[in-house]
Amino acid sequence: MDQKEIYEALAAIVGEDDVTIDPVELVAYASDASFLRAIPVAVVRPENKEEVAEILKFADENRIPVTPRGAGTSYAGQSLAYNNAILIDFVKMDKILEINLKDRVAVVQPGVIYGELNKELRKYGYCFPPDPGSAIACTVGGMVGNNASGIRAVKYGATVDHVLGLEVVLPGGKIIRTGGRVWKSSSGYNLTKLLVGSEGSLGIFTEIILKITPAPKYTAMIVPVFEKYEQGLEAATEIINTGILPSAMEILDDVCIMVLNSALKEQDRLPPAGAVLFIEVDGSNQEVVKEEAETVRKVCEKIGVKQIIYSTDPKRTEELWKLRHSLANLLAKLRGENIAINSIQDFAVPISHVPEAIKEVKALAAKYGRLMVAFGHIADGNVHLGSAINVEDPAQREMAVKFASEAVDIIIRKHGGTLSAEHGTGVSKAAFIELEHRDTLTLMRGIKKVFDPHNILNPMVMGLTEVPKDEFVYMAGVK
Amino acid sequence: MDQKEIYEALAAIVGEDDVTIDPVELVAYASDASFLRAIPVAVVRPENKEEVAEILKFADENRIPVTPRGAGTSYAGQSLAYNNAILIDFVKMDKILEINLKDRVAVVQPGVIYGELNKELRKYGYCFPPDPGSAIACTVGGMVGNNASGIRAVKYGATVDHVLGLEVVLPGGKIIRTGGRVWKSSSGYNLTKLLVGSEGSLGIFTEIILKITPAPKYTAMIVPVFEKYEQGLEAATEIINTGILPSAMEILDDVCIMVLNSALKEQDRLPPAGAVLFIEVDGSNQEVVKEEAETVRKVCEKIGVKQIIYSTDPKRTEELWKLRHSLANLLAKLRGENIAINSIQDFAVPISHVPEAIKEVKALAAKYGRLMVAFGHIADGNVHLGSAINVEDPAQREMAVKFASEAVDIIIRKHGGTLSAEHGTGVSKAAFIELEHRDTLTLMRGIKKVFDPHNILNPMVMGLTEVPKDEFVYMAGVK
Repeated sequence: MDQKEIYEALAAIVGEDDVTIDPVELVAYASDASFLRAIPVAVVRPENKEEVAEILKFADENRIPVTPRGAGTSYAGQSLAYNNAILIDFVKMDKILEINLKDRVAVVQPGVIYGELNKELRKYGYCFPPDPGSAIACTVGGMVGNNASGIRAVKYGATVDHVLGLEVVLPGGKIIRTGGRVWKSSSGYNLTKLLVGSEGSLGIFTEIILKITPAPKYTAMIVPVFEKYEQGLEAATEIINTGILPSAMEILDDVCIMVLNSALKEQDRLPPAGAVLFIEVDGSNQEVVKEEAETVRKVCEKIGVKQIIYSTDPKRTEELWKLRHSLANLLAKLRGENIAINSIQDFAVPISHVPEAIKEVKALAAKYGRLMVAFGHIADGNVHLGSAINVEDPAQREMAVKFASEAVDIIIRKHGGTLSAEHGTGVSKAAFIELEHRDTLTLMRGIKKVFDPHNILNPMVMGLTEVPKDEFVYMAGVK
Repeated sequence: MDQKEIYEALAAIVGEDDVTIDPVELVAYASDASFLRAIPVAVVRPENKEEVAEILKFADENRIPVTPRGAGTSYAGQSLAYNNAILIDFVKMDKILEINLKDRVAVVQPGVIYGELNKELRKYGYCFPPDPGSAIACTVGGMVGNNASGIRAVKYGATVDHVLGLEVVLPGGKIIRTGGRVWKSSSGYNLTKLLVGSEGSLGIFTEIILKITPAPKYTAMIVPVFEKYEQGLEAATEIINTGILPSAMEILDDVCIMVLNSALKEQDRLPPAGAVLFIEVDGSNQEVVKEEAETVRKVCEKIGVKQIIYSTDPKRTEELWKLRHSLANLLAKLRGENIAINSIQDFAVPISHVPEAIKEVKALAAKYGRLMVAFGHIADGNVHLGSAINVEDPAQREMAVKFASEAVDIIIRKHGGTLSAEHGTGVSKAAFIELEHRDTLTLMRGIKKVFDPHNILNPMVMGLTEVPKDEFVYMAGVK
């Protein structure tokens, strides 16, 4: 079936205004936050589940692959339309359908922006906590598809911990519902939690039912700067050992500090240092929050800080978070044109393995003569590592593949870690999935077949279809 | 293959001491906490995963069904060996393999008793919170198989929220691992959470990796007694509306109060009343816990209490919980020989639907001339309803089936509820599963086939194999 015929079939479903095959528009949809590229055969913007069902019926009958896409902020190519796929853009399914305080749920369409949903929930004193770095742009559908999380997962869990029910369209066009708005169920298999993180490969979400969580009333922020990276790691461990569960605990290394400083006014700059932590505590009682912040401060001072910023003022705290969140953009600017960060950027290891794992991967980078940034959500074992290469240089690409393979081996085989803590496997990490999941990959492929017998749903993700290793592994972005 | 041959094959794997076909012993394994009965062809007690693998290889090759069993405290027949199945008893795989405070995980064998694990964890200031009613007897393997929870799920979640990784034996004897000891992962499908609650139908657990949670340092208990049941429901709603998240909030109705009083000394008896709540608040700060308890007390007093018991003394609190937990045994005694409680005993509905759902099911019971008890975990929408029948009387059995069908219709179709909030679907609720899961049952059956192509693993549970309705629905126990 040629592009024109696909266009006409889709236009018959959604109308001509909501489908495009214009080459310029298609190129705008050809990338995500990785360096991977794939041009869709067509982009379609359905407005309701019935249209999604019609699209999937058409695609399934004609064996055309389909990729769902939220805001395209994914780091691993999972929202790209490989193999001339139809890209379904959820920009027109962006409604908050219901905020129900009595049932403590929110019901949303997949295209709703996470930040917008939280703004609305906070009016009622509630929130949906996972808080990924792309909070102001990413969609809830994308978060559910990737089991996204972020700085607050250590206390409040990842997306999977907050999804109660889904409305899902299957290939062929059948519309099903999993779970519901009950808070607890032990009835049947938990298909909802299986679908969370399935990266568009099992079904397409058209409605999402979320638990909502009371928003913390008070927060305090402590930002200690340490001479050595190891002191930062030690402080993180000691804080957890006090029994305090911070709502966020981020670590940034020396390179990250330099990068941040490059964007700050002189009076705001951090001293050159080995590590800075961004620690937040929260709660419903102001005194307790202050006490916990005091405890955190004392732990840091005991270990020995170069400088410490302390804030119980919400505005100042927000500024400090903005500083932390600016890092991704600053790193992206640094890497410039054609510079990609390798695909090991989102690993997690058991909590006690974090210091060793970082040390070993940094040593590996040094062996290859590569500068590496390390930052992340230290309290739950999730670390982002980044190292730039010029993707136009075949020698650097080859080196990146070798480096990534060795790094992944350290993370998974030596430390029992995972390829992806919160960004998803996508295409860029697909080549390594067997190393992590071994025999269970056969089960995953079997499950995929139950939902999607003709393999039309985002077939390139997660190693569900074999992926040529060298083409992808160096292509991921950095958070 | 006859029983003797099965015995010999199993004895060759585990040794003669760990397998039995003695009729008297088999009868001891023929029941669980429901009124269902099924006599296994043999009971086998493996000591390690290799033996489990050998057993499943043998069973799969010979197409003999297999049911795993923990403590047999299940309420829905899911630990019974239907169809002359081999019953695997995990009594010899009851070790706590590791408590790792640095990684904040516990690694256990499936046969470890929940209460024993928590006793051990509390030595280090940690716990595994779900706390089912059968805490002192049930196994962690059984909890994972059923996604069990209990009074503390409202604050701390169900079992599924605490399982990080599993070692699982598949039919044919392959040993796989899902997840691990990382706290966060977005890599591949979440098979761990799919296996939690699968009731032995997808694979047999041989090792379980659990998150551990800091045990709350302080608790307070408030037990208000209300004239009317509606006041109890109102108090529950008002407490949640204050923003306090109780660690437990239980409601008991008039019949439950009478039952409790029947076992209490005169001076300890509660006044005759419509409802009593058992509310617990907990935390790491004593003052905050006291303040929250005060707030709860004020809410209850405003609504109008007949009596209120208040405790910040851990011993007194423990006594009050013992009182609450004694209810199940007292009800069991009341029902006597041959008296079963119908299978709608464990539903959950969206939180705001609780009052209406209870009212309607009670009215239905009245229509059938049946006395009904209602109690449960009010704050997360999980209510236990029980109504006794004499299972020896065909007319009562017929009535029970009709009643259950109508009640389930109210719960699922009218209120969007679930058949089972924490006990599992098992065999007793299998006949209704299609009503709740509709089209997704086909997907569940497909997934079952991926893991278990010859349908040997607990095939009667969850409607994965069709179940004759009339034989089972009145047979469930009451919590």
